[in-house]
Amino acid sequence: MAMLDRPVDPARAEALDAADPLRGFRARFAIRDPDLVYLDGNSLGRLPLATAERLRTVVDEEWGGDLIRAWDSWLDLPVRVGTRLASAVLGARPGEVIVSDSTTVNFYKLALAALEARPGRRSVVTDRANFPTDRYVLEGLARSRGLKVRWIESDPVDGPTTADVEAALDDDVAVVTLSLVNYRSAAIADMPAISSLARAAGAFSLWDLSHAAGALEIGLQESGADLAVGCTYKYLNGGPGSPAFLYVRTVLQAELRNPIQGWFGQRDQFAMGPAYDRASGIRSWLTGTPTIPAIVAVDEGARLVEEAGIANVRAKAAALSAYAVELHDNWLARLGFSLGSPRNPTRRGAHVAVRHPEARRLTEAMIRHGVVTDFREPDSIRLGLSPLTTSFRDVWTGLALLRDLGGG
Amino acid sequence: MAMLDRPVDPARAEALDAADPLRGFRARFAIRDPDLVYLDGNSLGRLPLATAERLRTVVDEEWGGDLIRAWDSWLDLPVRVGTRLASAVLGARPGEVIVSDSTTVNFYKLALAALEARPGRRSVVTDRANFPTDRYVLEGLARSRGLKVRWIESDPVDGPTTADVEAALDDDVAVVTLSLVNYRSAAIADMPAISSLARAAGAFSLWDLSHAAGALEIGLQESGADLAVGCTYKYLNGGPGSPAFLYVRTVLQAELRNPIQGWFGQRDQFAMGPAYDRASGIRSWLTGTPTIPAIVAVDEGARLVEEAGIANVRAKAAALSAYAVELHDNWLARLGFSLGSPRNPTRRGAHVAVRHPEARRLTEAMIRHGVVTDFREPDSIRLGLSPLTTSFRDVWTGLALLRDLGGG
Repeated sequence: MAMLDRPVDPARAEALDAADPLRGFRARFAIRDPDLVYLDGNSLGRLPLATAERLRTVVDEEWGGDLIRAWDSWLDLPVRVGTRLASAVLGARPGEVIVSDSTTVNFYKLALAALEARPGRRSVVTDRANFPTDRYVLEGLARSRGLKVRWIESDPVDGPTTADVEAALDDDVAVVTLSLVNYRSAAIADMPAISSLARAAGAFSLWDLSHAAGALEIGLQESGADLAVGCTYKYLNGGPGSPAFLYVRTVLQAELRNPIQGWFGQRDQFAMGPAYDRASGIRSWLTGTPTIPAIVAVDEGARLVEEAGIANVRAKAAALSAYAVELHDNWLARLGFSLGSPRNPTRRGAHVAVRHPEARRLTEAMIRHGVVTDFREPDSIRLGLSPLTTSFRDVWTGLALLRDLGGG
Repeated sequence: MAMLDRPVDPARAEALDAADPLRGFRARFAIRDPDLVYLDGNSLGRLPLATAERLRTVVDEEWGGDLIRAWDSWLDLPVRVGTRLASAVLGARPGEVIVSDSTTVNFYKLALAALEARPGRRSVVTDRANFPTDRYVLEGLARSRGLKVRWIESDPVDGPTTADVEAALDDDVAVVTLSLVNYRSAAIADMPAISSLARAAGAFSLWDLSHAAGALEIGLQESGADLAVGCTYKYLNGGPGSPAFLYVRTVLQAELRNPIQGWFGQRDQFAMGPAYDRASGIRSWLTGTPTIPAIVAVDEGARLVEEAGIANVRAKAAALSAYAVELHDNWLARLGFSLGSPRNPTRRGAHVAVRHPEARRLTEAMIRHGVVTDFREPDSIRLGLSPLTTSFRDVWTGLALLRDLGGG
């Protein structure tokens, strides 16, 4: 059966699918076009069937029927769903995570809070290859407060190293902020080591987990990370623009203050008292009225990861990406492609980037042929491998198409 | 037919309903319990039937079926729905309004932008009776930036006057911020006169339109207001926690900068370029990824106001509140109640507050008897009169119940 050992026909992919302990999860999602190969769950995850159902309940029965009285059960949803994310996805403790606002706004809140807690320090360290919104927020804070952003020039494939961070650190640095998984390369940064370096230098570590949540075992508690934010519409399948999460390590909750003091962060919210008296704990990081149906969708997405088990999710992601790398090496390397993601599987998240000078054209051609991926400047095709919905057969089909297109 | 001229039986209410040109709109909303009298549309508006339907399309077909490709049509929704609100609800111009974030976050963005545009000035003027989240945000900004909040002590029923504002103004004031309609009393502030006073003093005017949008003819363009935010889940019926709107007068768009620089405010968002290059116009006030289903719900709510016509909506609100005041005067005044809203109908929004020493207990009793209102500290029962869904018969029933409960 030598044929099955080499990725030249889909039989091996089918065998991998047959052996996949998570294969049953795909049926829990809406698959309207069974011929579509969707390798973009790292941009927008698929719709869980349970979410569609629960949204109908929230909209038709709770909003439509219970009206304002439904707030009795809605009011603690940001904390309740945060608690589910903490345990099922993030490896954090109850009371350390909320669902609130967008990743951008949460990142702003935490970055500014950290800066305000280190008033004598004037620098922020981040990676030139970090996700744009994080970089833009930092630029805005730097401009407004006369601070300096120290840019790490990380390796475009392997991402920032502890040495990169160490070289940027001194006692002027208030915050070190990186993505755990790079949005383009999927490189995983060494969160424990970097968080520890930051702390030793008297700075806070602030992590963007957008491309990690629902794809890796993050272990926030063990990692020593101080602060984190992340997106719920990728591997957590929360839907377009679903609210983000925000994490503040328990020991820092008294020291750091939410700079956007809204009524949902007020201790006795409906007393509507004369002065801001911030709620204790993680609730003080809420701002305005949370978007209830969207948080409920996050809850359903998180439940699926909880049910699958994050260790199984991570194992599936690793197997999918290893298979994609193998197909790249066998088929694409000779056609002018190169791998844009780390070769070391323990340093690679749940997508694989392949680089090609004509990546944009190839991505567009793939989409026309029914394989949805995305292009990232300057030359990456990202193949998103969503552990609950992507099959090995999807990977095979996507890479085979890329081979055919790239060889033409 | 003298009976019909006096509010002693529901016949007069029924005659008013029969003559109401907007009476047909009630059938456009989900009414799951026809016996429920809902006088709390100023806290959470009812569910439009079209919204339930459109949410199913957005979730099941667009998210579930089109997946990431749906972003082609979603991407400009915050501006597109903002344009509808501008013309149908706010009296603003296209390109002056977006739908984005929460009222709290939008208020923070605009207040801070205004402060940063007046760096030499150290004071902000607002009303002690302003809505809590606005006050709390200002307190936070003041604390963080060493500013001073100057509190207007307005009349608890009639709200802040131009004289109140004038007395608080000098050349240290950067921003004057008030609610157009007070959340407790429904008092309408004189937006044109106060905006003009602020401008003459070199300060920006920033208006919270939460209790006005979808209930009044706001006329932002004519009013001279500089900046505004507001809520969409009250009279605009956008659903629990639906995203808020934000308005920046065209002439100020070059001068003021969004302090939360996110990727949705970037000119060429998907180039993911190295530096923030803000989008031109109102789009630069976006932050992170907008919550698409929630914005679509705002669109549907705004469509209904558009169809009804804001002048008709205002006329209905005025008629409902006049009727509530009349019933208060006839039934409640002798029972220890007093009117907590302005008597002058041109100075009163779309809810009516009645005050009573036992307001909390009475509100709870009303809810038990199937009339939903809400209590606001220290002694107000708010009767929300949502022009598209509240009938005169609802007002009659609510006030009659209050009479019976208050007389007991």
